[in-house]
Amino acid sequence: MIMSEKKNQSFFQKPSVAEMVESIVGCKWSLRVMQLIRNGVNRPGEMQRQTPGLSTKVLNERLTKLQRFGIAEKEVFPVTPPHVEYRFTPFGDKFLGIIDSIEDLQQELAKNEL
Amino acid sequence: MIMSEKKNQSFFQKPSVAEMVESIVGCKWSLRVMQLIRNGVNRPGEMQRQTPGLSTKVLNERLTKLQRFGIAEKEVFPVTPPHVEYRFTPFGDKFLGIIDSIEDLQQELAKNEL
Repeated sequence: MIMSEKKNQSFFQKPSVAEMVESIVGCKWSLRVMQLIRNGVNRPGEMQRQTPGLSTKVLNERLTKLQRFGIAEKEVFPVTPPHVEYRFTPFGDKFLGIIDSIEDLQQELAKNEL
Repeated sequence: MIMSEKKNQSFFQKPSVAEMVESIVGCKWSLRVMQLIRNGVNRPGEMQRQTPGLSTKVLNERLTKLQRFGIAEKEVFPVTPPHVEYRFTPFGDKFLGIIDSIEDLQQELAKNEL
């Protein structure tokens, strides 16, 4: 992908899909945030209310990571007070499918079905 | 999973599916060996002949890992000279599907289709 040189290169540099999988499946908060977005919980404040133990700092880090990976995108609504919503990109939807497959296979394995 | 105490615990202890994905996608030789088995190259000698640079030590380590993960199984044929063949287990077939999904999504990303 060719990026404008004026953009923040480090923010837009993407790891490989395999590296993204490693980064996401190894992080319970990343998985939790993806689950929340899937369930229609799109606003950071509501994400925190539904997730005891999730600090603002950690939430923001995970949301930034999901954007950097191209999994989620942020929409800023120009209202007072301002509010933002996160949703999956088309890539994020497909990526979520892979995460689901990994979790499904883990369940099968745990049930000794394989 | 409850294991017989008589079995070699360390050999049979399985990491999570997510950890297996990390271990496999991060290792070109593991991916190569899985590709070979998929293509019907089931014997270690033939795997090496078709893969310049793959040492016997590395190949055996990767084959042992695939068995430990439950992805591949070894069949020993009682012939002279003895020969062994590796094939995917039912779990391995499903695991391969996940690896394929990751590689497909990487291709789409590389082609800028997402």
